[in-house]
Order: sequence, then structure tokens, then C-alpha cells
Amino acid sequence: MFSFHITARNNCARTGIFTTPHGDLQTPVFAPVGTQATVKTLTPEHLKDINVSLVLSNTYHLYLRPGDELVRDMGGLHKFMQWHNPMLTDSGGFQVFSLSKTRKIDDDGVTFKSHIDGSTHRFTPEKSIQIQENLGADIIMAFDECSDPNDAAYSKVAMQRTHCWAERSVKAQTRDDQALFGIIQGGINADLRAESAKFISSLDMPGIAIGGLSVGETKQEMNDTLDVVTPLLPENKPRYLMGVGTPEDLINGVLRGIDIFDCVLPTRLARHHSAFSLEGRLNMMNASFARDERPLDETCDCYTCKIFTRAYIRHLVVAKELLAGTLLSIHNLRALIRLMEQIRIYIADGSFESRAPGLLDQWANNAKRLVNG
Amino acid sequence: MFSFHITARNNCARTGIFTTPHGDLQTPVFAPVGTQATVKTLTPEHLKDINVSLVLSNTYHLYLRPGDELVRDMGGLHKFMQWHNPMLTDSGGFQVFSLSKTRKIDDDGVTFKSHIDGSTHRFTPEKSIQIQENLGADIIMAFDECSDPNDAAYSKVAMQRTHCWAERSVKAQTRDDQALFGIIQGGINADLRAESAKFISSLDMPGIAIGGLSVGETKQEMNDTLDVVTPLLPENKPRYLMGVGTPEDLINGVLRGIDIFDCVLPTRLARHHSAFSLEGRLNMMNASFARDERPLDETCDCYTCKIFTRAYIRHLVVAKELLAGTLLSIHNLRALIRLMEQIRIYIADGSFESRAPGLLDQWANNAKRLVNG
Repeated sequence: MFSFHITARNNCARTGIFTTPHGDLQTPVFAPVGTQATVKTLTPEHLKDINVSLVLSNTYHLYLRPGDELVRDMGGLHKFMQWHNPMLTDSGGFQVFSLSKTRKIDDDGVTFKSHIDGSTHRFTPEKSIQIQENLGADIIMAFDECSDPNDAAYSKVAMQRTHCWAERSVKAQTRDDQALFGIIQGGINADLRAESAKFISSLDMPGIAIGGLSVGETKQEMNDTLDVVTPLLPENKPRYLMGVGTPEDLINGVLRGIDIFDCVLPTRLARHHSAFSLEGRLNMMNASFARDERPLDETCDCYTCKIFTRAYIRHLVVAKELLAGTLLSIHNLRALIRLMEQIRIYIADGSFESRAPGLLDQWANNAKRLVNG
Repeated sequence: MFSFHITARNNCARTGIFTTPHGDLQTPVFAPVGTQATVKTLTPEHLKDINVSLVLSNTYHLYLRPGDELVRDMGGLHKFMQWHNPMLTDSGGFQVFSLSKTRKIDDDGVTFKSHIDGSTHRFTPEKSIQIQENLGADIIMAFDECSDPNDAAYSKVAMQRTHCWAERSVKAQTRDDQALFGIIQGGINADLRAESAKFISSLDMPGIAIGGLSVGETKQEMNDTLDVVTPLLPENKPRYLMGVGTPEDLINGVLRGIDIFDCVLPTRLARHHSAFSLEGRLNMMNASFARDERPLDETCDCYTCKIFTRAYIRHLVVAKELLAGTLLSIHNLRALIRLMEQIRIYIADGSFESRAPGLLDQWANNAKRLVNG
């Protein structure tokens, strides 16, 4: 039901096709985040127009609201949100650690309080898989523990627990129409990352994710970690760098052999009135755009850039009109989707490695990091 | 440049075609409100899909932000917001009276404070026309004074001023590609309304509006006022009932010979998680919809009803997702646009008068009044 074929290579970078029950993914691919079963402010039609192929949704959020059993009874996540292309759910681990106010971790699982109403809940690897089976995404994730990258001792404990939980996640899986990916942890410690890469690879799961990055380490540390990890991974499985990232991160990730990315950045920036552009990140509150008749990005082919001026978008932002978020989300997502389309073309024609420095330069002023969530 | 042809009649009700520089309007027509040069949460593509033909925008709001001269310099309102079909701007009078915290009215005009920053501004008939010429809508409105309908003495003063201001508005107009409509006032006093209808008709403007209704009077008082006014109006000019209304108000208005309506109700209800339906107005926060797999309205042909369940929309509402407002706005607007399409068909085939009681009954539970703004 799942297969991954590499179609071209440029040193470590590669293009491929990952087959899922809801269609083929052309990799490298960027997935927008639909936290609560909706990519904020956009309809499924908008996503199709942008050429989105994979959407991520959050296990933690959907478990709390509307409830995974309700989603299952409504026919699963694809039908519920009317996205009939590939979907991915995370394990809930990251949100438990980043959103829940109080949590108690033991070797069996995590007890936490809902960020919505303070009620107490418990996730274990088995529970996470059960929830993800109820949701029904094409790609699901093993339950993991994300550590502070700068705390080596904690990173080791969290990594060991993540390994144990990965094995339990595999055993807990009952559906065969979902690809369960293991997650590599280990903070920014090269030895731990190498150990984790080898262990997770040994489980022979259909895909491998790299977690615990883009959570406070430097860009150099992220790239160094990828340089340790990706050479240790099997060639024939898709590699997913979780919660990343900026245009710069995507280019650097693909250079190191990453196939799948997701990030809230484009839609979050949109809600904070910022736009990706080749001139650098634009703050659309800025008075300099008040009479600017150009599109956000003259090279962009999105709906927003094809018909609206910066002047109009700035007016919507200043007037606090919700349409601003929609138009900026369309553009920011299309910018990253289009970057990935270009990268796939460059890998196929063998020019990606030589073009990468130029691409990095082009997107350099968009690279300010926001913490993922 | 403007012409109005009546194409069918059912007693007082009529269908017609109003020709404007941006296309023909099939009347009776309902216009959604795009207060700040956007119909809240919707793109122009959404409006086209809903079969919207006329969009209203607000002179008061656009004068304050982004400024009518900026809109003019960006090519006018149609180009600025990318709505290339007919548009209408109000005179700003109603908003000055309903939104501005302090205002001082004299026979020459109104001095008021901005609801945004408290700055002081002054509207006169000449200023209102100048702003509306800068905005560039197809239909523009004479500057008027809206009174408390229950204050007969004030209604008389406001009506007299409105008449004087209508004459000044006509004189102030310099563009010939905008149809300037006069506004009938007079509160709920039959004598004043009759006097105003005759006076405004005597100015021989290309269309006639009825203002000062749906502002606190009863439905009976509104219908009684229309019964006084419409028989006094010339047959061959479009009649616009401002700020109205509910499905029930539209049916009652058409029965009395009204051709054009506008109201914030469908989009405002959407932001307050309510949906029009033949079962009555639905409050989508309600837990009874949590597992309801039906569309909002099984008879509706809108995007929202074609693909999404009540369960999903309720989830979006509860999770405070902005997409809820978009999907509910699409549906609520389509409900009124479709009602007008049906009414035009019924007038054309001669069945509207006999069907009207059934239509009123069908929509009865959607008729709760919200004050317009």
C-alpha cells in the first residue's frame, strides 16, 4: 500500500514518489499545518489551487476537540475536513510538551492538562496510535519525547524513552493502510543522534522522521545534526524533518537528503501580517506599502499576487479585515510550495547543488526563525 | 449610461434590468455589504461563485481608512478590491449617526469624531459626493439624515434637511458614470413619508432609496411605511430599500415593489456562528450539531452545503477557527441570493404573489431582527 521510489539524485538531495492510499506525493514536499482539521483561513479549494499535496493535522488538538472518536464516526479526518489527498498526523508528543501547562512524564507515558479547560489526560504510545487510527491519516507518527536540545542529560533520557515508545507504537498499530514513521531524537548531541538514527532505522518502519529540531537550537546546530543523521539512514525510505521551516531551512534540508517538511510558519506569518518575498520578509502593516501597486511578489503565480496590490493588502491588515489572513496565507504557502516545485525540477535536471547557494541567497531575508508549535 | 427596464410584474412586485457601467443588474437584487472594501472573510471569487451581482461599500469607513483619495489613486474601488461588477456606496450619513461617538448637525452638514481615533471630520452633501466620486461606485447616494423613527418632531427636521441635502448632492455631482439616488426619510410618520416620497421623486434622479427603516421600528411599521411610499414613486426607476434585511423583509419588500436591498445580516450572522436554513436559524455552537452529518441546508447549492457537514462547521465554530466565518458567510449570502433568484423566477412566471405566503412561512424562523450598522 506504501512505496517510495527515488527518481533522481543530486549528491544527497533526491526526488521521489511516495505512494499513499490517498495519492502519490512528489518529494521533496512541504506540508502546511492544519492544526484543528483546517489550514487556518483556507478552504480545501484554496489548498488545491496552491498545489498543496500533503496536509498535517495535530493529534493533541483533535483528541481534545472535537475528539478522535467523533472524527472516526464522521468517516475519518479526510472526509471530516474534506481533504481527499494525503494527510499526516503527528503523535501529540510535541504539543503535550509545548502547550500543556503541567505534565508528568514516566516511562509508560505522559499525564497532562488540557490547554483548553485544564482537564487531566494521559497519552501513552498505545493511546497515541489508537487516536491516530481513529483519525485515519495516511502517515502517522510514533509517540516520542522532545527534549531541550541544550540539555544533554535530558536529551539522552528522552531519546531512550523515544526508542522504547517507538517499539511500543509499532506493536500497537492495527491498521495496515497507515504508514507509521519512527522519530529520531537526541537533541544536538552528535553521539545521541547517531545512536538514535541507527536504532530507529533498525525498526524497519516505512519512513523515518527527525524530531526535536527547530526548537531553540541555532541553524548551524540544526544543519550539523542533519549531517550526522541522514548518512546513517536507509536510502529507500522517506525522511521527514518535523516542524521545519523557513525557505532557508527547506533548501538546507533538501541538500542533506530530507524528503518531507511541515511548518506553521507560512500561515502563522500570514496572521501576523507578514509575507514571504524575494525582497525579504514584508511587514504589511508598514506605511511604505500604502500606495504600492505591485503584488506581494512579482515572481509569484498565486491568486493573491495575480490580482491584489500591496496597497489593498496593507489596507486589509490595517483595517483588521480577516481577508488579509486568507490572502497572505495563500501567498506564503504558495511561496514554499513553489520553492519545492523548483527544487524538484533542479534535482531532476542535476542543477540543484550548484543552484542552492543562489537560492539560499535569494531567500536569505525571509529566514528569521519562529519557534514551531 | 444607466437605464432601467421592467421585464415582468406581479401586482406591485416587478423584475427589471438596471444597466450600469460595470454590467447589468437583474432586479430584485440583494447586495452584500463590503464595509471596508471587502465582504468580510470572502474573496471576490467566492462572491462570483455565490452569484453576487452588486456589492455595497461604506463611504464613512473608506473615507477614514484607507482614504478616498488613496482609493482614487489606486484606480478606484472596483480595481482596489478587484470587484469588477456593479458597486454601490452609501453616503456616509447613516454611519456618522450610528458609529461616531459625538456629532454636531447643522443645516450645512455634520461634524463628527472618527470611531477609530477620535479625530474630528466634517461631512456635507458636497463632501459626501466628492468622496463617492473618488471611490467610483456605479450607484452613489445623496447625503441624508436618518432620524429616530419614534421621534416625529425630529423626523420632520431630518426629512427637511435630507431634502435640502439631496438637491445639493445633485448639484455637487460632476461624474456622469455614476447613478446618484435620492433618499426618502420621514421616520414612521405616513404624512412625512408621503411628502418625502413626492419631493425626492420630483428631483428626477436615476433611482430612489428608502432610508431610515430597519433602525428600531416594528416589522408592521416598516411594511406600513412601504405601503405609503412605493405607490407614490415613479414606476420606471429602481427603488432601493436601504439596510434591509431578513429573508422575510426581502419577500415583503419585493411584494411592495422594492428592487434593491442590502444588509450586513448574512455576514454578521456568520461571524456570530448562525446559519439561515429552512428549519429556522441555526446556532452552530449548539451541541446538537456535534455529530450531524447533514449540510447546513439540504436544499442549498452553495460550496459549504455541497461539501461540509454541520458536525465539521460546529467543530470549526467551537475551535474558534476563522474558516467557520468564511463557510457560514458563503452559505448565508447564497441563501439570500438564491431567494432573490427564486423570487425573480416567480415574478416572471406570474406566481410570486400566490407563492409569497408560503415563502414567508418557509423562512419564518430566520426572521429575528438585528439592527443594521
